Amino acid sequence: MKRREFLGRAAVVPAALAVPSIAQAQTKVKWRMPSSFPSSLSTVQGGAVRLAEKVAELTDGGFEIQAYAAGELVPPLGVLEAVQSGTTEAGYSPGFFYVGKKPALAFDAGVPFGMTPRQHFSWFHHGGGKELLDEVYDAFNMVSIPAGNTGAQMGGWFRKPIDSITDLKGLRIRAAGYLGYIYSDLGAVPQQIAIGDLYPAMERGTLDAVEFTSPTDDETLGLNKVAKYYYAPGILELGASLGLMINKDAMASLSPAYKAALEMACAWTYSDMLARYDSLNVAALRRLIAGGAELRAWPDEVMSAMRKSADKLFTEQGEADPDFKRIHEHWRAFLDDQLRWMSVNDVAAENVLIRG
Amino acid sequence: MKRREFLGRAAVVPAALAVPSIAQAQTKVKWRMPSSFPSSLSTVQGGAVRLAEKVAELTDGGFEIQAYAAGELVPPLGVLEAVQSGTTEAGYSPGFFYVGKKPALAFDAGVPFGMTPRQHFSWFHHGGGKELLDEVYDAFNMVSIPAGNTGAQMGGWFRKPIDSITDLKGLRIRAAGYLGYIYSDLGAVPQQIAIGDLYPAMERGTLDAVEFTSPTDDETLGLNKVAKYYYAPGILELGASLGLMINKDAMASLSPAYKAALEMACAWTYSDMLARYDSLNVAALRRLIAGGAELRAWPDEVMSAMRKSADKLFTEQGEADPDFKRIHEHWRAFLDDQLRWMSVNDVAAENVLIRG
Repeated sequence: MKRREFLGRAAVVPAALAVPSIAQAQTKVKWRMPSSFPSSLSTVQGGAVRLAEKVAELTDGGFEIQAYAAGELVPPLGVLEAVQSGTTEAGYSPGFFYVGKKPALAFDAGVPFGMTPRQHFSWFHHGGGKELLDEVYDAFNMVSIPAGNTGAQMGGWFRKPIDSITDLKGLRIRAAGYLGYIYSDLGAVPQQIAIGDLYPAMERGTLDAVEFTSPTDDETLGLNKVAKYYYAPGILELGASLGLMINKDAMASLSPAYKAALEMACAWTYSDMLARYDSLNVAALRRLIAGGAELRAWPDEVMSAMRKSADKLFTEQGEADPDFKRIHEHWRAFLDDQLRWMSVNDVAAENVLIRG
Repeated sequence: MKRREFLGRAAVVPAALAVPSIAQAQTKVKWRMPSSFPSSLSTVQGGAVRLAEKVAELTDGGFEIQAYAAGELVPPLGVLEAVQSGTTEAGYSPGFFYVGKKPALAFDAGVPFGMTPRQHFSWFHHGGGKELLDEVYDAFNMVSIPAGNTGAQMGGWFRKPIDSITDLKGLRIRAAGYLGYIYSDLGAVPQQIAIGDLYPAMERGTLDAVEFTSPTDDETLGLNKVAKYYYAPGILELGASLGLMINKDAMASLSPAYKAALEMACAWTYSDMLARYDSLNVAALRRLIAGGAELRAWPDEVMSAMRKSADKLFTEQGEADPDFKRIHEHWRAFLDDQLRWMSVNDVAAENVLIRG
């Protein structure tokens, strides 16, 4: 047999060459990675694509991850299930898309009045967050690594100004996950609508307002053409961490170098995406305002009411899910500490520069 | 000869084995990387060590970087020269240590009233900063990649309170580089003192105040034992980016995968160091205050005067170095844009959380 022949020949190779210096290098690995985002969003879905490119670059093409945009392989919100079941080895999606399955997953991505990208990264990697979330993801036979962050998202586009809480009553607003809870608590009627349907729904008038992400993405979707008032600051989403979800069996099959390549590419994408957003958002916001968008700050009354609703949300979710309660307490203590520290130093200094 | 014998034997290896699937993988590469920091500073010098570990992990040990603490191989401020001359392939040191050679190098690390770590990373990688700094480093036959950041540093330790600018007159303060310029402009007498000599100089009374980094490092050096008043916010250093300086010839010799490993490890260390500082600083500051340190905010008068001195510094350095002027204008425009954007959204949101 040919195989036997080959083995026979290999056996005569001198020992020194049979064990080359790159002996631990892994043979070809191919993974599939569906995501929750359309390819039109070059910052967020581009992050998934660039992550895969970096892994290939780091491994000389040995570790190939095929990135799929939303719906190409599995539905936009079917990513976690695909990874859990092993249908795909990995997936690119934020944990807060799956709070219906498990509320505690929200802390992997972000919650209202939550952490900045910097705070989330510190909590996850050096504050004990990873260990807590690993336990939660374990039940889904996966791990999730922070692999992107949008920065604070804007408050969204409204057809009419919001001068007080009463202006929110009955308002049909696209607001996903926990943001929907808060708007509902304030009397609005939150809608879960696929990204591609946001513009048409606003145009048809079946939707009054839409919270999506930040200037560069909102401009891509054309939201400024269907609403005039653009609210800030993004207190309901100070950051949204995108996770690389990885099936545990697939993860266990990786060599140390391939595992390191994956982890490094995730950390790089986390910073790189935020840097892109920051750089792109300024120019996009300028164009949006020049095009007629009216930038408005949330009234204090609205922000206070949102915070009360968020506290209510945390209490209720904590009662529904002991893991949520446990992680929330840990997360809260870390954030409170960081806010104290930032108020003394980093943000205090930035405020001095902003005041000019 | 043995070598000939070996080559002779190798020649009989079947072709299929002589060209393994990992053909592009590079053979063993060994670099030396001196740094400007003592090994006692586990966050900043630890960053250099961890960077080297990550590169080894990513390349299955094929790319080995030996990290040396300050003085082990070259003097603390001799890192740039070692890399420039090719004495070492790489070095770990912030550009602002070398403004005496070339003022424009300051923008690689940070200047007073400058960028946060997030802004610096965005400016460098997505704002055109890299291209501008590459031109400057080109004259030194090297490139520098952001590979660490401390976050905002504190204003320093003072034996007596600073209630007005007059309290700065004649004050002997350790303040390196451009900070020294500012203190000098305000009537103080800045000193350049090696890190290991700071504590003894304060103890002996030959120094009245010391600006070093932030709570965790300052605690390590024991500065709270030799001064009571600890000033904030860190407007003179909103961030200090540590660079991995790389000799261009050494860089050109790397395979694409090894080059990618180096770049990824730098980006990871940049975020990882900041996350460590943020996490460690809170606990350290708490211990310092519990131990008697008195946290004080700079009087507005002092901050205004510092800003005026900084503007004067920028004008003077721009006149001395056309590259400084050109990069400063580009850098300034990017920062102004970011401050506008942050004042609308991210920092505005964080301020809402800080106010509680």
